Amino acid sequence: MAKDFFTREENYSQWYNNIVIKADLAENSAVRGCMVIKPYGYAIWEKMQAALDKMFKETGHSNAYFPIFIPKSFFSKEASHVEGFAKECAIVTHYRLKNSPDGKGVIVDETAKLEEELIVRPTSETIIWDSYKNWIQSYRDLPILINQWANVVRWEMRTRLFLRTAEFLWQEGHTAHATKEEAIEETEKMLNIYAEFAENFMAVPVIKGIKTENERFAGALETYCVEALMQDGKALQAGTSHFLGQNFAKAFDVKFATKEGTLDYVWASSWGVSTRLIGALVMAHSDDNGLVLPSKLAPIQVVIVPIYKNFEQLKEISQIVGIIKKEIESLGISVKYDDRDTYKPGWKFAEYEFKGVPVRIAIGPRDIEQGTVEVARRDTLEKAVYQQIDIGHKIENLLVHIQENLYEKALSFRELNSHIVNTWDEFKKIVDGKGGFVYAHWDGTKETEEIIKNETKATIRCIPLDNPKEEGKCIYSGKPSTQRVIFARAY
Amino acid sequence: MAKDFFTREENYSQWYNNIVIKADLAENSAVRGCMVIKPYGYAIWEKMQAALDKMFKETGHSNAYFPIFIPKSFFSKEASHVEGFAKECAIVTHYRLKNSPDGKGVIVDETAKLEEELIVRPTSETIIWDSYKNWIQSYRDLPILINQWANVVRWEMRTRLFLRTAEFLWQEGHTAHATKEEAIEETEKMLNIYAEFAENFMAVPVIKGIKTENERFAGALETYCVEALMQDGKALQAGTSHFLGQNFAKAFDVKFATKEGTLDYVWASSWGVSTRLIGALVMAHSDDNGLVLPSKLAPIQVVIVPIYKNFEQLKEISQIVGIIKKEIESLGISVKYDDRDTYKPGWKFAEYEFKGVPVRIAIGPRDIEQGTVEVARRDTLEKAVYQQIDIGHKIENLLVHIQENLYEKALSFRELNSHIVNTWDEFKKIVDGKGGFVYAHWDGTKETEEIIKNETKATIRCIPLDNPKEEGKCIYSGKPSTQRVIFARAY
Repeated sequence: MAKDFFTREENYSQWYNNIVIKADLAENSAVRGCMVIKPYGYAIWEKMQAALDKMFKETGHSNAYFPIFIPKSFFSKEASHVEGFAKECAIVTHYRLKNSPDGKGVIVDETAKLEEELIVRPTSETIIWDSYKNWIQSYRDLPILINQWANVVRWEMRTRLFLRTAEFLWQEGHTAHATKEEAIEETEKMLNIYAEFAENFMAVPVIKGIKTENERFAGALETYCVEALMQDGKALQAGTSHFLGQNFAKAFDVKFATKEGTLDYVWASSWGVSTRLIGALVMAHSDDNGLVLPSKLAPIQVVIVPIYKNFEQLKEISQIVGIIKKEIESLGISVKYDDRDTYKPGWKFAEYEFKGVPVRIAIGPRDIEQGTVEVARRDTLEKAVYQQIDIGHKIENLLVHIQENLYEKALSFRELNSHIVNTWDEFKKIVDGKGGFVYAHWDGTKETEEIIKNETKATIRCIPLDNPKEEGKCIYSGKPSTQRVIFARAY
Repeated sequence: MAKDFFTREENYSQWYNNIVIKADLAENSAVRGCMVIKPYGYAIWEKMQAALDKMFKETGHSNAYFPIFIPKSFFSKEASHVEGFAKECAIVTHYRLKNSPDGKGVIVDETAKLEEELIVRPTSETIIWDSYKNWIQSYRDLPILINQWANVVRWEMRTRLFLRTAEFLWQEGHTAHATKEEAIEETEKMLNIYAEFAENFMAVPVIKGIKTENERFAGALETYCVEALMQDGKALQAGTSHFLGQNFAKAFDVKFATKEGTLDYVWASSWGVSTRLIGALVMAHSDDNGLVLPSKLAPIQVVIVPIYKNFEQLKEISQIVGIIKKEIESLGISVKYDDRDTYKPGWKFAEYEFKGVPVRIAIGPRDIEQGTVEVARRDTLEKAVYQQIDIGHKIENLLVHIQENLYEKALSFRELNSHIVNTWDEFKKIVDGKGGFVYAHWDGTKETEEIIKNETKATIRCIPLDNPKEEGKCIYSGKPSTQRVIFARAY
């Protein structure tokens, strides 16, 4: 019989998959590489969307929607973009099916062939800049600060639920500015929003940095990123923000009349995060008992389970629960009362523990007598008896503590697994061993970066912003270097 | 020079297009039939989504997400579904591009051909029921109440912004039930939600009814709909809710163990509304001065325009506006203060009038002296002077009145344009003339329905729910009929 759950130690990859499947977050579909995001998983995405959308709007952005299809020729307009994208992608070639002559099903109608193939967007810079061309004449039309929530498709060969799927959901911001400085300021502002979101909502500490040229977005002059560390010592890129310079404006001929009366190309940024963040969330906090969710992103923050022997008791408990639930909900906390008679309390405890509900309240006949409830927190698995008095604020505080504790725990983990490394042997030993963030000197060349990647599978995750300058020698080539960069194997 | 704006009388179709384009709701993209929904138009969609999503969740539904691609063979599984859908659709045949040998751009890599073509979803019954198959074993797994917010593609030959586009945004609910009665109850419940949304939020009165067999959704046993009347006398279907019987359960072999221990196929419903509703909203209320929006769906509910001669005055006005704006916003009303110095008040008045902002407040030096503001309402174009005292509640009341007035106006229009017709000549005269809803007897046959459609372009919009029984003779064939049905030309 196949083992149905693995610990992190036994098989980290299987452990991750087990959690995603058994906690009902997502599953594979009949379409290769495309996942079904199940209601519980989608509810996490909705919470992420709500928080990010609010931050985007508070910083002056509006949402819009652009076509899912991009004419093939658009990709060739920006030279480096076509190299990086539009190779592994879904291509629409026909627009009609017809009944099969053998009467069995339908076949492609070969007469309905598109003159130009359409690509299902892997990212939308090209189709959006084709629109911006008509929107921008003068500096008065700038800045344009637009975000889009959408699905995108990249024909990945090896897929993993949330982390790498052919279709995924994301948001992509696309902004247009009159000056280089303003575009860079925007790029950095959005990076800060991603960092704030990761740390304050996901409880995942991140390092802000810039990518090397090798790892840069295809078409960007600079790619900023936030990098997180997972429990298996691998890094995960949790968001990117790109300074695109005038590349797309030039490719799509988007010029504007400046205040001074001259004509100039428009400056651009783009930035995005995706359902991949759900994968990061799972891997950052979960344990061998299942999913662990931070309070702010948990679809159900509190579950209440009644402990009873007969319907008389259940009725009595339900009355008290009604009051408690209302009190907690009045503070904006989501509470589920699971009074199903088809499952025993032990089964329910295991279920909600596995699904990562931050707080579980159990209430039985003795609690009714004594005016208490039993409160269990998912992050530490600790239990305590609370007086029912002022239960709302007590639970509210507990949720804050859980949120903070998860962040602190993830931060300690990262600190324990960040290594300053000065020799090539040590570098290989750590990368091959327990992994983590490796701070090492690098000579700044593509060639060395490539060799290190080929030999160890470690890539440069980023050059941290505000990196201290430090004289040193490249870990591999021994050539001089002025700062350390972060290496790690990555998702 | 081309005329840049038409009245409804002059050219209804151009009038509609002018409003959509000039009010910055949407525009055509470089991809045939696919629109760009611009920020102002998308903000209306966001308001629609928020209201509907709340109603869906309050009735126990959760959101989820299923793949955009559907294997071609899935469509053939439900016999009538394949006839109605999956013919005019976008077909993905390849998954890779490569550099063109001539060095110019990219071409399809013929070696990367899919074994089975994928269809970009025109609707998701098939891919969803393929998943439900694995989710449902027993009656305990039922009901499943899921909604999806998504983009879909139908390769329409003649497209119009919002009303008919190749790609559009929508929500599609897909539910699974243990009994026929429960599935029908769900179908009707969602129809009622659509009617409530149309009337209470869009301020568009609708008639609830069922479709004839000809007009039914491909794969449904019964299609319920809400039908609205536009200002040109044409009908617009504002939402449909389908009772699917066991058709998709049979096609995908989805059986469940009943409480009684037998095996039965699962019962289903599906229901949806789309960005088409924005088209309906535009056409229902707008006038020859531009867009008119009901208070509840207006992205900007109140705009404040300062009237000033110099910066000293502007400064003074802005101070008072700060207070007024805060007071109005504290009631959950969205307010924009347009203090741009680059445009004159008259230009701003015209702009916001055209964009359908329900309430405009103007404030000048004399208002400052007298403690007043000038308030203009978009629906009636009336102006009034208000004392600044308690301005928040006054504006709140005004917004309620505007919402109600638009509904009443649309309702009177519909009543004036609903005709009880008893002869074929009169029928043709009305349909060819000013249009409207025509209540007429019909013999209940597909044949007659087809002939009437071919001769007049009028279709049976619906058989109203709770239709009074009435003996009569078919308008066309003269054969006996027991009730009137509603005919109209339609979008």
